[in-house]
Amino acid sequence: MKKVSVIRKEHFNAAHRLFNPEWTDEQNQEIFGKCNNPNYHGHNYDLHVKLSGEIDPKTGYVFDLKVLSDLIKAEILDLFDHKNLNLDVPQFKNLNPTAENIVVVIYDILRQKIDTKFDLKIKLFETERNYVEYPD
Amino acid sequence: MKKVSVIRKEHFNAAHRLFNPEWTDEQNQEIFGKCNNPNYHGHNYDLHVKLSGEIDPKTGYVFDLKVLSDLIKAEILDLFDHKNLNLDVPQFKNLNPTAENIVVVIYDILRQKIDTKFDLKIKLFETERNYVEYPD
Amino acid sequence: MKKVSVIRKEHFNAAHRLFNPEWTDEQNQEIFGKCNNPNYHGHNYDLHVKLSGEIDPKTGYVFDLKVLSDLIKAEILDLFDHKNLNLDVPQFKNLNPTAENIVVVIYDILRQKIDTKFDLKIKLFETERNYVEYPD
Amino acid sequence: MKKVSVIRKEHFNAAHRLFNPEWTDEQNQEIFGKCNNPNYHGHNYDLHVKLSGEIDPKTGYVFDLKVLSDLIKAEILDLFDHKNLNLDVPQFKNLNPTAENIVVVIYDILRQKIDTKFDLKIKLFETERNYVEYPD
Amino acid sequence: MKKVSVIRKEHFNAAHRLFNPEWTDEQNQEIFGKCNNPNYHGHNYDLHVKLSGEIDPKTGYVFDLKVLSDLIKAEILDLFDHKNLNLDVPQFKNLNPTAENIVVVIYDILRQKIDTKFDLKIKLFETERNYVEYPD
Amino acid sequence: MKKVSVIRKEHFNAAHRLFNPEWTDEQNQEIFGKCNNPNYHGHNYDLHVKLSGEIDPKTGYVFDLKVLSDLIKAEILDLFDHKNLNLDVPQFKNLNPTAENIVVVIYDILRQKIDTKFDLKIKLFETERNYVEYPD
Repeated sequence: MKKVSVIRKEHFNAAHRLFNPEWTDEQNQEIFGKCNNPNYHGHNYDLHVKLSGEIDPKTGYVFDLKVLSDLIKAEILDLFDHKNLNLDVPQFKNLNPTAENIVVVIYDILRQKIDTKFDLKIKLFETERNYVEYPD
Repeated sequence: MKKVSVIRKEHFNAAHRLFNPEWTDEQNQEIFGKCNNPNYHGHNYDLHVKLSGEIDPKTGYVFDLKVLSDLIKAEILDLFDHKNLNLDVPQFKNLNPTAENIVVVIYDILRQKIDTKFDLKIKLFETERNYVEYPD
Repeated sequence: MKKVSVIRKEHFNAAHRLFNPEWTDEQNQEIFGKCNNPNYHGHNYDLHVKLSGEIDPKTGYVFDLKVLSDLIKAEILDLFDHKNLNLDVPQFKNLNPTAENIVVVIYDILRQKIDTKFDLKIKLFETERNYVEYPD
Repeated sequence: MKKVSVIRKEHFNAAHRLFNPEWTDEQNQEIFGKCNNPNYHGHNYDLHVKLSGEIDPKTGYVFDLKVLSDLIKAEILDLFDHKNLNLDVPQFKNLNPTAENIVVVIYDILRQKIDTKFDLKIKLFETERNYVEYPD
Repeated sequence: MKKVSVIRKEHFNAAHRLFNPEWTDEQNQEIFGKCNNPNYHGHNYDLHVKLSGEIDPKTGYVFDLKVLSDLIKAEILDLFDHKNLNLDVPQFKNLNPTAENIVVVIYDILRQKIDTKFDLKIKLFETERNYVEYPD
Repeated sequence: MKKVSVIRKEHFNAAHRLFNPEWTDEQNQEIFGKCNNPNYHGHNYDLHVKLSGEIDPKTGYVFDLKVLSDLIKAEILDLFDHKNLNLDVPQFKNLNPTAENIVVVIYDILRQKIDTKFDLKIKLFETERNYVEYPD
């Protein structure tokens, strides 16, 4: 059967700090540089959520993008938007909020809410020049 | 052999309405909401056509993008640009012009015009935040 | 006093047709070309609303952009989004919905809702390559 | 004489929190909403610095944009990039870091470093949809 | 009378080299750095042409953007696109093709072709991060 | 194991000319048109380098994007930026510098510098509307 992908773009603004609590300050500074600022810095994150599946012949939709947008708002934006990822988001209590870890956390949350008949792939832009995809 | 993909971006502006003629007005309103306006609404569609194949050692091209641009203009833009998809485009006489159905129609038209030694993939942006890909 | 400008970007999707009812079909076709399609075509319109004024020392705001966004939604997007400008929007009953006329209509609506202590300027993108500003 | 404007775009990533220390928590929440998160949130700020002046006939430049880029890096990015605006930037010790206040602070710093024969104007994007200009 | 601005965006790709023939190689290298490569380098130039005037009540247009696009193609793109600005464009035979000089040359050409009842302003992007405007 | 992709965007500006030295001028003109200008033309090239691999649990990184940026600068930008691809870059001494050939050259250079445990994919934009990917 023909499979089509549909993609919805959303965004959120958040603060974070990169560091490994098992390392010394010097080690953290060496690896994470400016991103290790203990007072945090922040980003406008652009999030692309992609579902792949068959077109429903009654609607012409693979998945209603309004429904997908509402799902992303309820499951992801309410958790991440205008938040400090290190302090406010439980998933990063013991996990460094790098773009790589954020994209896997978002995937794991959404994967549980979306029927497994749809393939799921996430792209996350931390800046215009740095972005990540999962699964690869 | 090494395969490289080449992509040409084109665009068209069109009106459309989403609805299923077998449903009641209430059902159409419930599923398609604002997109069900019987007077139509419209979009600037951005179209990315991707061909994958081997580089011709004489030209250094996989496929001349000027030729691809002319092909897209002749086969797709002349049919879709500044048109009402529901009323003016025969392919949507009995097919709901969702982004998913539009991308499959475009693929099917171009697939017949492009040598099968090239893989073909289409990406279509209906808005900056909603887009589709086929094949997935 | 120091005056700062604040700008909020919104968007809407609409269908329209350009024509002058006092002209013959041939005249309309000659002047408006593809834009004269009687079945309509459409666009994703990007709207930038700019207010200029002094910074309120208590808030640090010239104008709360959340309030401005809500105002644009209530006064403009509810009127224009997913609509046929010619058929659904009273302001264009006897006015050709060119980008120039749309930007003046939007200005006139918002000007009545925004305190005259703020300067107001509107930018409207009809496509990525065609846009207008009012006042100039 | 002919005056031409030259513009250099730079960017920085920072955390901030909006609040007025003279207000109650309820007042701050009412006015600043999500932006009042005491744990901070953040943005990718895009900064456009515009100088207007006459073309130097020897170089063909109004102002060497490499020199302008270096000046912005030394005077602004070193101060703001990967920082917490409230905690790390002295100018915001007693000033709410709204986009309006940030753009005036940047202007005041750069105005002292650039010959007054050049007009100076700053545009600052806090998000893709919210931005400010100074002077207006 | 109400004046509205209409803007058309076009683009061209060109090679150039920055240098002053009255200077030594060392002086040219010091001022122009990488841009002084005697073998040339190049850019994708984005050009925004803005006309301001009154709306024609018969058409709803300030100026037909299709006509403006054709004019830019005939007067500017045919002269600049896929050219070496230093070698192929007569205006730069004795004029350094900096963005500042290019924007003034484009203005001077178009100003002669456009009725003086319209104000004219040109914006030229040499890169995404370096651009110029004339008049300022 | 979970594999995540990380992507870094860089850019360079270069001149080039497309031609096949084994062909007559007429053949070159027929195939390459404006791109065959013997005086060269140029582009702003946007380069996206994508590495796929497992997340290092100590850093939360697949690959430090600052390190990747430095690697791209040292291996690619120093070779290509502000250069004439035909005259200044040894790889194109006997190879036509089409986007397809450039993307393969960049891949081959970077592939030797990046551990084979990472998958590598390159995307190169020659203009906003023409771009290539390798491997496909």
